[in-house]
Amino acid sequence: MADFPLPPGSTIGILGGGQLGRMLAMAAARLGFDVAILEPGPVSPAGRVSSLEICADYDDEDALEQLAASCDVVTFEFENVPAAALKTLAGFGTEVAPGPKALAFTQDRVEEKRFLVAHGVDTVAFEAIDSAEDIPAALERLGAPALLKTRREGYDGKGQAWVKDAGEAAAVFAAIGAKPAILEARADFVRELSVIAARGRDGQVAVYPMGENRHAGGVLRTTTAPAAVPDITRDRAIEIAGRILEGLDYVGVLGVELFELADGRLLVNEIAPRVHNTGHWTQDGCLCDQFEQHVRAVAGWPLGPTEARCAVEMENLLGADAERWAEIAAEPNAVLHLYGKGDARPGRKMGHVNRVKPLR
Amino acid sequence: MADFPLPPGSTIGILGGGQLGRMLAMAAARLGFDVAILEPGPVSPAGRVSSLEICADYDDEDALEQLAASCDVVTFEFENVPAAALKTLAGFGTEVAPGPKALAFTQDRVEEKRFLVAHGVDTVAFEAIDSAEDIPAALERLGAPALLKTRREGYDGKGQAWVKDAGEAAAVFAAIGAKPAILEARADFVRELSVIAARGRDGQVAVYPMGENRHAGGVLRTTTAPAAVPDITRDRAIEIAGRILEGLDYVGVLGVELFELADGRLLVNEIAPRVHNTGHWTQDGCLCDQFEQHVRAVAGWPLGPTEARCAVEMENLLGADAERWAEIAAEPNAVLHLYGKGDARPGRKMGHVNRVKPLR
Repeated sequence: MADFPLPPGSTIGILGGGQLGRMLAMAAARLGFDVAILEPGPVSPAGRVSSLEICADYDDEDALEQLAASCDVVTFEFENVPAAALKTLAGFGTEVAPGPKALAFTQDRVEEKRFLVAHGVDTVAFEAIDSAEDIPAALERLGAPALLKTRREGYDGKGQAWVKDAGEAAAVFAAIGAKPAILEARADFVRELSVIAARGRDGQVAVYPMGENRHAGGVLRTTTAPAAVPDITRDRAIEIAGRILEGLDYVGVLGVELFELADGRLLVNEIAPRVHNTGHWTQDGCLCDQFEQHVRAVAGWPLGPTEARCAVEMENLLGADAERWAEIAAEPNAVLHLYGKGDARPGRKMGHVNRVKPLR
Repeated sequence: MADFPLPPGSTIGILGGGQLGRMLAMAAARLGFDVAILEPGPVSPAGRVSSLEICADYDDEDALEQLAASCDVVTFEFENVPAAALKTLAGFGTEVAPGPKALAFTQDRVEEKRFLVAHGVDTVAFEAIDSAEDIPAALERLGAPALLKTRREGYDGKGQAWVKDAGEAAAVFAAIGAKPAILEARADFVRELSVIAARGRDGQVAVYPMGENRHAGGVLRTTTAPAAVPDITRDRAIEIAGRILEGLDYVGVLGVELFELADGRLLVNEIAPRVHNTGHWTQDGCLCDQFEQHVRAVAGWPLGPTEARCAVEMENLLGADAERWAEIAAEPNAVLHLYGKGDARPGRKMGHVNRVKPLR
């Protein structure tokens, strides 16, 4: 087992070589760490800025052994890493953070919501759905329309669909792949907020100012931070983040998506046990961004400052949006972040831009 | 020849794999570029964050051909790249920026000062020294003590020594390696300042606020920026930077070290045709730091904003200084930058820390 805190020169392994891995890798390098990436796809965004890139499936035993041998600690950029991979790494004596408990509760939407409820955190009302036959009764209890999502996997609106009435239960269940699912009541929210928080190996917790998010087609378009929220909302978000971090015995950065209701209550929509798109504003809005914060946490370093040094509007650049790079580069208050992806498929996350303003 | 501006996804080559190359590579990656490093030493700081690392001497023809074939433009992290290497790259049709004119005038301290004088920029008084016999007469004209430096190479105080009287001419000439040299009058300066400036492919010039520098043993210890200077000093520095950039037909970032005299005059001490240690404060003090600025310039992009968003004190971490990483990481207003170097030899630049404060 590694001794924490890891000194500079140690190697941090990352499962997943996308843009989150890339930005984690660059933050790690800034702190003097080497980075090894395990990623099934070749020439990944993260692999191209890392000292070692292992191109293999996440459950490839040899690849995991090579990663374990190369790294002092391993983390991941997305929550759908097979639990078996983490078990294999643990078998090689490799510390993985966040730990298996965080993954167990966030890889399954029903387990996640049960965990939240058990820890005194409000969510939308929900029902576990094992087959299309479960839907009509659940819809009766939750009210129509309700949102059917696969229990596992799915992101950015994939693997989910609305059920408007019991008559379409079979069709919608088939549409999401006829897999174990969750049916969620429609949240009558006034806006979508999020909070990015971190917990260190010593239990220290750090919480960034909240972001206000706008989605379109299930995909994040913009985050405005710090969100203009009453103190009581901010305090409640900090409390929610703290309960989740403690409850999961968490080490690293975690993103929590929230619905703000008309009466000011906050419901948790989703937990992401990783750096999160709604935290990209911290790169140009904070001295220590979410990527460095995650590296600090998993390496056993003290957490960094989370205060906003300016206001930021983060805009995701999806697909052809990234063709606007020249125009954005000429804006006086914009910082452009591109992910090095070649193929600008419609809707694909190609980069983002942080537009900064003085704090209100 | 490449078409400018280079779109994201293009590859930028860097001659030199040290910390400046590393920070350039990370800035390039942030803008969606790939990076190829040519560096004689293995596992270099820059190579470990780049998609291609070519380990070979700078004059290795095969290596230069590989670099040329991989890159859309090539730049360098230090000015002592052999001119022949740039000629070889040009022979392969590869655009190199800054261009050969900038290198020709900055690789030779006598040529550099003649260039400055010819462009109406003040320097300390100097004499070219070809042999120890030239020293007594030069010392007579310049006044003793005077500083003897090799015309070529030498950095961070290496290859230079004071001559206190004519009697030690032979010994001091031998001490710097008995090479063609320059003898410089002692500047009676009140402080050392510097200015970091950039010029784009379209001739656009951008100048950062000035830094005030403290050296010890010929090596930079701290930069405080923006330096508290009268408007007339700032305007004069901008004018100096502009004359140099225009005169060298420059593309990229350039650092100018200045002596401020008691009467407010500025003398140029040295030009560095590259990103410069006294510009590291821009990483946390500006939206577009000197590394991104250099990448923008060589890629033919518009230059980025240079205003200071906060005050910064940059401290170099030399040798064992870097062992203070844990302490620095716990400071609330410090941003740590480490270079991934294993061997903390005394005086070796291992990293730096930017401590930020609100602007005065």
